[in-house]
Amino acid sequence: MTKKIKAAIIGASGYSGEELIRILSNHNECQIKIITSRQYDGIKIGEVFPRFAESKLTFSAPDVNKIIAECNVAFLALPHGLASEYAAKLVNGGVTTIDISADFRLRSLNKYKEYYNQDHPAPELLKDAVYGLPERYRESIKNAKLIACPGCYPTSSILPTAPLLEKGLASKDKIIISSMSGVTGAGRKVALPFIFPETNESLRAYGITGHRHLPEIEQELAAAFGCDAKEVAINFIPHLVPVNRGINSTIILEPTSLNITVKEIYKVYQEYYANEPFVRIKEHGNLADTKNVTLSNMCEIGFTYDKHTNKIIITSCIDNLTKGASGQAVQCMNIIFGLEETLGLK
Amino acid sequence: MTKKIKAAIIGASGYSGEELIRILSNHNECQIKIITSRQYDGIKIGEVFPRFAESKLTFSAPDVNKIIAECNVAFLALPHGLASEYAAKLVNGGVTTIDISADFRLRSLNKYKEYYNQDHPAPELLKDAVYGLPERYRESIKNAKLIACPGCYPTSSILPTAPLLEKGLASKDKIIISSMSGVTGAGRKVALPFIFPETNESLRAYGITGHRHLPEIEQELAAAFGCDAKEVAINFIPHLVPVNRGINSTIILEPTSLNITVKEIYKVYQEYYANEPFVRIKEHGNLADTKNVTLSNMCEIGFTYDKHTNKIIITSCIDNLTKGASGQAVQCMNIIFGLEETLGLK
Amino acid sequence: MTKKIKAAIIGASGYSGEELIRILSNHNECQIKIITSRQYDGIKIGEVFPRFAESKLTFSAPDVNKIIAECNVAFLALPHGLASEYAAKLVNGGVTTIDISADFRLRSLNKYKEYYNQDHPAPELLKDAVYGLPERYRESIKNAKLIACPGCYPTSSILPTAPLLEKGLASKDKIIISSMSGVTGAGRKVALPFIFPETNESLRAYGITGHRHLPEIEQELAAAFGCDAKEVAINFIPHLVPVNRGINSTIILEPTSLNITVKEIYKVYQEYYANEPFVRIKEHGNLADTKNVTLSNMCEIGFTYDKHTNKIIITSCIDNLTKGASGQAVQCMNIIFGLEETLGLK
Amino acid sequence: MTKKIKAAIIGASGYSGEELIRILSNHNECQIKIITSRQYDGIKIGEVFPRFAESKLTFSAPDVNKIIAECNVAFLALPHGLASEYAAKLVNGGVTTIDISADFRLRSLNKYKEYYNQDHPAPELLKDAVYGLPERYRESIKNAKLIACPGCYPTSSILPTAPLLEKGLASKDKIIISSMSGVTGAGRKVALPFIFPETNESLRAYGITGHRHLPEIEQELAAAFGCDAKEVAINFIPHLVPVNRGINSTIILEPTSLNITVKEIYKVYQEYYANEPFVRIKEHGNLADTKNVTLSNMCEIGFTYDKHTNKIIITSCIDNLTKGASGQAVQCMNIIFGLEETLGLK
Repeated sequence: MTKKIKAAIIGASGYSGEELIRILSNHNECQIKIITSRQYDGIKIGEVFPRFAESKLTFSAPDVNKIIAECNVAFLALPHGLASEYAAKLVNGGVTTIDISADFRLRSLNKYKEYYNQDHPAPELLKDAVYGLPERYRESIKNAKLIACPGCYPTSSILPTAPLLEKGLASKDKIIISSMSGVTGAGRKVALPFIFPETNESLRAYGITGHRHLPEIEQELAAAFGCDAKEVAINFIPHLVPVNRGINSTIILEPTSLNITVKEIYKVYQEYYANEPFVRIKEHGNLADTKNVTLSNMCEIGFTYDKHTNKIIITSCIDNLTKGASGQAVQCMNIIFGLEETLGLK
Repeated sequence: MTKKIKAAIIGASGYSGEELIRILSNHNECQIKIITSRQYDGIKIGEVFPRFAESKLTFSAPDVNKIIAECNVAFLALPHGLASEYAAKLVNGGVTTIDISADFRLRSLNKYKEYYNQDHPAPELLKDAVYGLPERYRESIKNAKLIACPGCYPTSSILPTAPLLEKGLASKDKIIISSMSGVTGAGRKVALPFIFPETNESLRAYGITGHRHLPEIEQELAAAFGCDAKEVAINFIPHLVPVNRGINSTIILEPTSLNITVKEIYKVYQEYYANEPFVRIKEHGNLADTKNVTLSNMCEIGFTYDKHTNKIIITSCIDNLTKGASGQAVQCMNIIFGLEETLGLK
Repeated sequence: MTKKIKAAIIGASGYSGEELIRILSNHNECQIKIITSRQYDGIKIGEVFPRFAESKLTFSAPDVNKIIAECNVAFLALPHGLASEYAAKLVNGGVTTIDISADFRLRSLNKYKEYYNQDHPAPELLKDAVYGLPERYRESIKNAKLIACPGCYPTSSILPTAPLLEKGLASKDKIIISSMSGVTGAGRKVALPFIFPETNESLRAYGITGHRHLPEIEQELAAAFGCDAKEVAINFIPHLVPVNRGINSTIILEPTSLNITVKEIYKVYQEYYANEPFVRIKEHGNLADTKNVTLSNMCEIGFTYDKHTNKIIITSCIDNLTKGASGQAVQCMNIIFGLEETLGLK
Repeated sequence: MTKKIKAAIIGASGYSGEELIRILSNHNECQIKIITSRQYDGIKIGEVFPRFAESKLTFSAPDVNKIIAECNVAFLALPHGLASEYAAKLVNGGVTTIDISADFRLRSLNKYKEYYNQDHPAPELLKDAVYGLPERYRESIKNAKLIACPGCYPTSSILPTAPLLEKGLASKDKIIISSMSGVTGAGRKVALPFIFPETNESLRAYGITGHRHLPEIEQELAAAFGCDAKEVAINFIPHLVPVNRGINSTIILEPTSLNITVKEIYKVYQEYYANEPFVRIKEHGNLADTKNVTLSNMCEIGFTYDKHTNKIIITSCIDNLTKGASGQAVQCMNIIFGLEETLGLK
């Protein structure tokens, strides 16, 4: 059977790369043709990821011309900055490019410079990049040549918050997001703070101001509310906790009306996400749990209204590597290629 | 060597009881005379807690008269409600009573009824009960006959927040506390949500409104600010995470002035806690981590000022069983009996 | 699309049941028609297993006649003893029955009585039962009406050991198996030893003599060697360790010849398992790791020859819920119904 | 109060160093004077180990003359090879030297070369080195100038095995030891296999032949039996499991008599360890669990006799950093300096 889509995964030796391989290996319409890694050039993937020992795939050093010749989609699982370089060539070469890095997420070149400490390496591409959150940008994704896959924290934050801003139930002010992430969220990084004895039985916040996912969340919540990104200033506080996978975000919003009810919020969610295969709204009283979404592309959302403080409180869970990265990337690919959106993701 | 203090631990078969035994077994001036448990009456403690196999202590059914005859301090590690019954008799019998349950934490009988779904069983004792947070109430503790040990979440929340309210740096409004707790925080409870496979690799919020520790936190922050408890309404959102021990609380406060600086906050903390053996203020840029306080009576506090949103952000860590329960109880005992406050706790 | 197989899962509220639901939900030729649970009769599965919230399946009390009328395969995820009762009726009713319990694993009624403390409830069915280890009994499985799915420890032990016994490389004497299992191996059991704080940071052996999986392993290794089960007496020592899923078995065998080489062992394995989709023989020097097989139906086998003591040492890993239970059950189903053996399992 | 012992900890930035600091900080008769680390020269220990933030201790580059001038005991927590260099100078300088590395554990220079891939750096010191296992060599330790602290696996293996060999209950042949270790056993090593996501939910054997602790175990078991080390060849199979601390060793021995009874074994253990403060023999039917010994210097031993295979089966647990390293080192120090042996260790 010949599959319709030929894919390259560039920078495939990290956890996002591994997750892409896992998902695409079971995808009926996409075949992995090329996986690249400078470090592991010439090495079979089973030696890096033993669970894929039966695969014939071998890492190669990245060769853009070869990718252009053989593939119609490329996933970039590269550090930011480097991703842009590949994106420029691949898009020009006609390859649909789905970037899991941060390079094309921010619309503002200034914000990019402020948060990533460098000038944007490919500003000319930004206008063509589409933010790859299908529940918000499905129509634009359909015709996109370059997808900026959302960050993991932003995905867990935007999905439950945007509808309430867009439908006028919640204020754009005083938004607070406190998140917990499993350790794969730090990448396959070999550093003292991430070895087992330093992470197990440890609970710690980090990057409590100025985290790189902050301007991304603000940009998208501003868009949902219908204002300029500058008008939204949120607190985003991430924590590292000893699980492998999963993000749990707790979000606190101010309602626009004192008469808001749980029923009303539930109705907005239900209508907004009625046809979404990857958003699960919990009935009131049931909160989200990362273990319900592990290895799935689902975003699970629980919520309540706290009359005591007049706040809407939301808990939202995703698998950081699936809906938070590679699963969402494949969801975007399915949309672009006109496939059933859930292909390979159920 | 005869030790000065003879202690009873009532309801000693849970994790707080185990922690009390651990601490008091190494205490130079306190000897455990009686440990009670109806369930394990007649059983050596080594059969319930194998790490104490060498101890000669044996559980007995609680006998108040015997405790009054033989002990000068009693720790109540009982369910709320039941604790009051014992407290009344013990206090009358002249035994200094340190209650780890919730019965005497709230000053308001209405709040007790609202949050614990029953009338207070011993309202006449409330006026004599002292909230056992030495960093706030040391002088009153010295002469107390009945100590209400603070809850674990409140301890982690009040210690970093109270000084900023008291010194006028932070507002009493819009306080938000998002906490993570290890599973011993749920007690030694045998229930499906707490078995290993349901808890490991799981991140979940619970009790996001109306948690029983909420009115306790509000009462104490109101006291620090100098207002009535009704005037403080906070968001307190606890989460269960897969570690054995530890609470990490992230606290968001509104500063009273736009000109506030990190230096100023640090100074307040340093002065306020200059002589406190169990409060550690991290230098700016270093956040708190539960693994730094495991099995210790320390509360570790990190903080920053977020100019972007004009908020003070604090992270605070304790061991929920030590500073959050049994360690604090022993700290109170030391104060009451005129001992060095850190005895048995270093 | 109408699927060929209609399945019932009887006793579906434990972890094996959950795993069956997970696997069969993605199976192209099998549809779950009935899932039973007395405890959860009338409850949607999403309320018991939130990750299946989108499923329309609802638990019902078991109704054998209905299963016979509507299904052509039934999986029994019941306690031993009870499973037999259902098996008798289902087999008589013409339903292919795949029993994940222990009732039909042992050929000897005496052993059953010795290890399970009761007379066998359906001895007349034993002669028709086939031990559901496809790598050993594929031909018999093809025509079986009643499958006895192997235990998890036996699967991890028999697969690496049987070929060396059958091919005469290893002795049937002095076999030692020391295994570690994740906590789902204890079932979804609510008991003190399995709550998180009692299991996390704990390493413990249990059942070090007389474990119920012992006679099963002995029976199958005797069969591989070609002797009576009585002639094989092994040490099997299980341990409980704090992971959710996975069994790692370390097996020590005496070679039959002093001249044995690693190459020779490797050759036997390679030939024996050349066409097996679910056995992975690691190249010499690479040991097995449970994380390589999590959520897969693979058995991963590493080995060496220890000249120092003249022993063959094997490490073998499976996912206890997949190849150790529900995955293997589906593999058997695929064989019986003439489907590709890996369907739904890749 | 002036303490009797002035200690130096050389190479104090790893987990053994941290554990030494923890223990000695609560030791009534020993004061840490010098802690060395080339990497952290000039850094306060609180910056490396935040739990010691209140300590005034500062790392310095190692200065042997200073140590000789100021200290009467030195702990070497250095890589093997390097430890010898310091030991030679310190012993000559009159400093009691307690080496936690492997340099002086093996009596045989050939074995050292075979297992550590280098010639022994200080063979002249070997004759003066005493193997620091107090339960076996207490008298020699009393007068020792140089202690070779046993490895963690050997401690967990020798303590339960030696008495049965020495008293003639078990054979020196066919000894099998299968151990599990927490990740601190790998040291504070920053390498891919030890980052959290690679270790959590992973169970794996390693070094299943030729582990460096093997000849050490063989040497000591031969001594217990009363034969040459060459006559003992055991299987020692270590596994890495996702806990922070703890070793659980399962040991299989052949009894010398077919008439052996559990009672007899228990009696030998009880008599042998009657006065030992750090050995706990579990009553028959109770197995060892690492969580019972975490952060303690105890070795917990459970056992049974398996009639089915005629084997003695033992499970033995220690904390790898305490009884397996730093606690045992302090126990030796106490003995050498004529203190109560349990000082600082209860």
